[in-house]
Amino acid sequence: MRPSGRKLNELRPVTIETGVTRHAEGSCLIRMGDTHVLCTASLEDRVPPFLKNTGLGWVTAEYGMLPRATHSRMQREAKRGQSGRTQEIQRLIGRSLRAGLDRVALGERQITIDCDVIQADGGTRCASITGGWVALRLAVNKLMKAREVLTDPLVDPVAAVSCGIYAGQPVLDLDYPEDSEAGTDGNFVMTGSGKLIEVQMSAEGATFSRDQMVQLLDLAERGVAGLVAAQHEAVGA
Amino acid sequence: MRPSGRKLNELRPVTIETGVTRHAEGSCLIRMGDTHVLCTASLEDRVPPFLKNTGLGWVTAEYGMLPRATHSRMQREAKRGQSGRTQEIQRLIGRSLRAGLDRVALGERQITIDCDVIQADGGTRCASITGGWVALRLAVNKLMKAREVLTDPLVDPVAAVSCGIYAGQPVLDLDYPEDSEAGTDGNFVMTGSGKLIEVQMSAEGATFSRDQMVQLLDLAERGVAGLVAAQHEAVGA
Amino acid sequence: MRPSGRKLNELRPVTIETGVTRHAEGSCLIRMGDTHVLCTASLEDRVPPFLKNTGLGWVTAEYGMLPRATHSRMQREAKRGQSGRTQEIQRLIGRSLRAGLDRVALGERQITIDCDVIQADGGTRCASITGGWVALRLAVNKLMKAREVLTDPLVDPVAAVSCGIYAGQPVLDLDYPEDSEAGTDGNFVMTGSGKLIEVQMSAEGATFSRDQMVQLLDLAERGVAGLVAAQHEAVGA
Amino acid sequence: MRPSGRKLNELRPVTIETGVTRHAEGSCLIRMGDTHVLCTASLEDRVPPFLKNTGLGWVTAEYGMLPRATHSRMQREAKRGQSGRTQEIQRLIGRSLRAGLDRVALGERQITIDCDVIQADGGTRCASITGGWVALRLAVNKLMKAREVLTDPLVDPVAAVSCGIYAGQPVLDLDYPEDSEAGTDGNFVMTGSGKLIEVQMSAEGATFSRDQMVQLLDLAERGVAGLVAAQHEAVGA
Amino acid sequence: MRPSGRKLNELRPVTIETGVTRHAEGSCLIRMGDTHVLCTASLEDRVPPFLKNTGLGWVTAEYGMLPRATHSRMQREAKRGQSGRTQEIQRLIGRSLRAGLDRVALGERQITIDCDVIQADGGTRCASITGGWVALRLAVNKLMKAREVLTDPLVDPVAAVSCGIYAGQPVLDLDYPEDSEAGTDGNFVMTGSGKLIEVQMSAEGATFSRDQMVQLLDLAERGVAGLVAAQHEAVGA
Amino acid sequence: MRPSGRKLNELRPVTIETGVTRHAEGSCLIRMGDTHVLCTASLEDRVPPFLKNTGLGWVTAEYGMLPRATHSRMQREAKRGQSGRTQEIQRLIGRSLRAGLDRVALGERQITIDCDVIQADGGTRCASITGGWVALRLAVNKLMKAREVLTDPLVDPVAAVSCGIYAGQPVLDLDYPEDSEAGTDGNFVMTGSGKLIEVQMSAEGATFSRDQMVQLLDLAERGVAGLVAAQHEAVGA
Repeated sequence: MRPSGRKLNELRPVTIETGVTRHAEGSCLIRMGDTHVLCTASLEDRVPPFLKNTGLGWVTAEYGMLPRATHSRMQREAKRGQSGRTQEIQRLIGRSLRAGLDRVALGERQITIDCDVIQADGGTRCASITGGWVALRLAVNKLMKAREVLTDPLVDPVAAVSCGIYAGQPVLDLDYPEDSEAGTDGNFVMTGSGKLIEVQMSAEGATFSRDQMVQLLDLAERGVAGLVAAQHEAVGA
Repeated sequence: MRPSGRKLNELRPVTIETGVTRHAEGSCLIRMGDTHVLCTASLEDRVPPFLKNTGLGWVTAEYGMLPRATHSRMQREAKRGQSGRTQEIQRLIGRSLRAGLDRVALGERQITIDCDVIQADGGTRCASITGGWVALRLAVNKLMKAREVLTDPLVDPVAAVSCGIYAGQPVLDLDYPEDSEAGTDGNFVMTGSGKLIEVQMSAEGATFSRDQMVQLLDLAERGVAGLVAAQHEAVGA
Repeated sequence: MRPSGRKLNELRPVTIETGVTRHAEGSCLIRMGDTHVLCTASLEDRVPPFLKNTGLGWVTAEYGMLPRATHSRMQREAKRGQSGRTQEIQRLIGRSLRAGLDRVALGERQITIDCDVIQADGGTRCASITGGWVALRLAVNKLMKAREVLTDPLVDPVAAVSCGIYAGQPVLDLDYPEDSEAGTDGNFVMTGSGKLIEVQMSAEGATFSRDQMVQLLDLAERGVAGLVAAQHEAVGA
Repeated sequence: MRPSGRKLNELRPVTIETGVTRHAEGSCLIRMGDTHVLCTASLEDRVPPFLKNTGLGWVTAEYGMLPRATHSRMQREAKRGQSGRTQEIQRLIGRSLRAGLDRVALGERQITIDCDVIQADGGTRCASITGGWVALRLAVNKLMKAREVLTDPLVDPVAAVSCGIYAGQPVLDLDYPEDSEAGTDGNFVMTGSGKLIEVQMSAEGATFSRDQMVQLLDLAERGVAGLVAAQHEAVGA
Repeated sequence: MRPSGRKLNELRPVTIETGVTRHAEGSCLIRMGDTHVLCTASLEDRVPPFLKNTGLGWVTAEYGMLPRATHSRMQREAKRGQSGRTQEIQRLIGRSLRAGLDRVALGERQITIDCDVIQADGGTRCASITGGWVALRLAVNKLMKAREVLTDPLVDPVAAVSCGIYAGQPVLDLDYPEDSEAGTDGNFVMTGSGKLIEVQMSAEGATFSRDQMVQLLDLAERGVAGLVAAQHEAVGA
Repeated sequence: MRPSGRKLNELRPVTIETGVTRHAEGSCLIRMGDTHVLCTASLEDRVPPFLKNTGLGWVTAEYGMLPRATHSRMQREAKRGQSGRTQEIQRLIGRSLRAGLDRVALGERQITIDCDVIQADGGTRCASITGGWVALRLAVNKLMKAREVLTDPLVDPVAAVSCGIYAGQPVLDLDYPEDSEAGTDGNFVMTGSGKLIEVQMSAEGATFSRDQMVQLLDLAERGVAGLVAAQHEAVGA
């Protein structure tokens, strides 16, 4: 019944390839089906002004799409400026990754996660969070190996998945053909231990019930468990 | 236990004054405690390009804050451009109001809802949605009275409220002192008949459980019911 | 003969309501007929760079219009940037208020006056100056009461009114229907003691004579006297 | 008593050299003492949208300063955008030139006057108006010679001069050393037949009286008469 | 003597992987050593305004760098706008690819080449041209296969390489450590048949002689021959 | 055969008038035929951040065109921002002038060269370099005369000329009618002693051979020699 032939509760094939760029302190290319996102973690000296001399660290994120990541070419944001959608997504990624962060343990340094969508087929913000955490993990591993950070500041993995009501059925991990048809969909950000970080459910020109909300949450828990397993495998933990 | 002395499940005093500006097709000043938002509905000839010659109508929203609506003065967005936060909020307002809209019944016209925060004390986006619907209702009433629209395109009222975990307890309708302390909070947009339109729950530097999610949802249902009653009273329905 | 039925030398009804917003150090809502402007005064630590370590204070102003303050909706300046007209007006307001200011007495602090037009019916820049002075007066009163400022830095009230040649006759305090027809109009900023601060007379596609200039000046003196009386009443002086 | 040794009512030496650039339909380099402005008139097919199919013409103006026209180098506006001051000045120039224009006689075409300050020593906006009218006159002459315009649309010359209170005395045509000291100054735009188009009198941190206003106006009439004579000589009329 | 151990006239290892993104009409990932650029060709309906109804086609290019393509993270251009360097490079890429294009044969359609640098180690603009031509070739092949284009509009392959004077010696294909030390360097764009399209030689704080210019040109011819061979292999021609 | 009747290897008449603006530390108006560029040198206290406390000086350049320098009026860059072409040109001018500069001898100060095109007829970037060097020379002379700089930091004059293939023939110093027809053209920046600083040869929709490249270089050497003679005459050396 799904265009891809997947079962209702089935994730797309997920692969996370690490060490894909030589300059970044951490990097991976995450593929969720045909959605491919390059995630890099950059360690930077500076922290935002409000954190100066607090001893606390910061993780922030930026998000972009290559112009031809999509079916028809989009205008380059470097030419027209960042859209509201882009800013909304990068705020979500940063907030999500900070939920799993011990800022005291990180110490007064900033790590910037760049998520650049090479190819898009739905779910790019979720893939960015899942892959972004892997890049962050690798950068923190480097800091710990160099004994610049002594206590692990990453207390729990963070991953995200989308779910939605497609053709009247709750389905896991929407691809673009499903996403463009679904009246209701949601993004769920969770930790490896099953805690919730962010829930965004939204109906475009429609509504949804409490029951549907719970059904989607059930699917999301299952999906995130699969993604966290893929993260563990990627970082060798 | 709440700074305001309110009960855990108690809304702030809500008043909705209509007809507050003479040019707009619909307008109201909504006050939720010390949060005051001026909402206007402007009927416009044009529809967005993707709706031309479709016969379908559109509702969109813009959001702003006066520079001294807040405790310390903020820079004017006309000087620095709209922030990501502002764009995120106005996209939410528009999406929420369209969920209760029959676009065929409205016909090929656009109504723009402007929500300008005169004074802020937390929950400005929710007050904007609740007040924005009243302005929209009044503008549509005018169209129906003039028999330019024959079937009511507003199928169900739309209102919104925030809830959060404050000092370990789920509380309804956060004011600013609560909002700035709450680790988890959420915005719930619902219809008058209790359907969900948008759920945004978010933890900054924290996580939340499924149980807490359900508790907040319970509070939100109660709060929205009170807001819908205030809307009905304001529009005389 | 005037669309409003007013006499040639008659102001619109003026009301100035103070204390309309809880955060600002001074605030008022000035209504000149159907022109309504919310004015706030914000005390700020910083002074402009050219005043650092001079011991001199500064008053500056910003001006905006809500998108639906006007008959048909205008585009939001936060989206398109401030127009030349807006910048011209806010420079005028700041310059006018500084003319009545003893910068030594104020000391090295800045007060920013925000004038936001809630509803427009002509004469918004003049109402902004008249109301802006009230907000400034209230903020300075607070500083003096706290004995942070010992000598009153506001040496003379400042108010403004427009006049023009409408249907061949000099008239006081143009409303929008008059303003849009008048070939010649002017804005006059004066002090409570009758001194001139700024005179801007302008003819669009027309010219005017010295005699007409003097007639408008006579009207302006009368109008400003009425506005200064309203200011006194508002600030309880 | 004036730094330049001029009499109180004496203009700076004025020269207007025409035909200084080969591409423009009309051009001149106006020198008022050490203030040098290059003015060009460009005939363009298009009119602003609000004039389409009305048969009416339009004159508009733009103003700029070369970065090192001033004593110390200013940042280039192409890099930082046009300042509020620049926009205010170019609106004034356009409005002034339109006051002497018969828009029906011009027909549905636009002439853009560019005023670029090569060297600044006070009074650049007035020199721009005076020189801008010469460029406009020459462009219109070309249209009339080609019989594209049959009735002269320039009904009266337009010129402008500044006056101010310097060291307690009313003086004509302020140069930069005077302008930077004057508490009160004004710009007067007039026609060749002595009618007023625009009066802008302003006091920075000071006030002025009606008597002073009249004295400055007297000086301005004398000054404009001299400038109109220079315009006539330049255009060979 | 070269940091990489390469001979003076030796290219870095070049690989061109095609079909790397599913949406674009043509795509490749070109690797010149550690410089990796993703090139996509997007077929678009519209042509620039100056080509409407001429029957002529157009090829244009855009260029970007992921923020962490470089040793230390650069600010994202979507946030700060395109730099002058970026604009200069994308103009060069477009101009170079058009030199090998028969615009009549292409017909009135536009192909946009996006070159996004995934990892940078010197020579990114040259790699973009070489890889960009491959993406263009693949997109044109598709048009020809569909018989939308009947005569091959790509008359000659286009490739580019940099050369420079490093440590006093002319060397081929500078990597970043060489590029940052070289006083003189150049970019040479040539066709497969050895014609020159663009020569850009530049000395930063130094000069060069005619002899050196000729030596670099000799190296460039050799280098481009190698790159054209790699292009042929990639497109299977 | 050339539209102007010039010989193939003949420069346009060149005049360089110095001291044309009173504020700048050095200035000239260079005329190459109908191309007229005003060049000023501004001495500034600050150096770019990367040079602070290095003892090294800096020369940078900015470039602009008056809107009606061209045949039809161009939009003012202060309104739309600097184009890629403008940025490319000003980077070239700065790089070229720095090639002839001893940054140690200049000491930690910056000189900004502004090149503003008053009238354009092809070759504006070359005229800007040639005239810019004269303005720089005059400003440095002033510093040396004041004994603020003791060793001459300008080791060799810098001048530039364009050449191209017009109607199949290599010609020197293209004017606009030639430039708009030439398939291949180039800009050559050289020193007074015949060393090369920058070579930019480019074919739009065409290619060129090594032989043609050498022919254009021969012409350029001849042209630059003439320009350097004009520079010497202008600065009285």
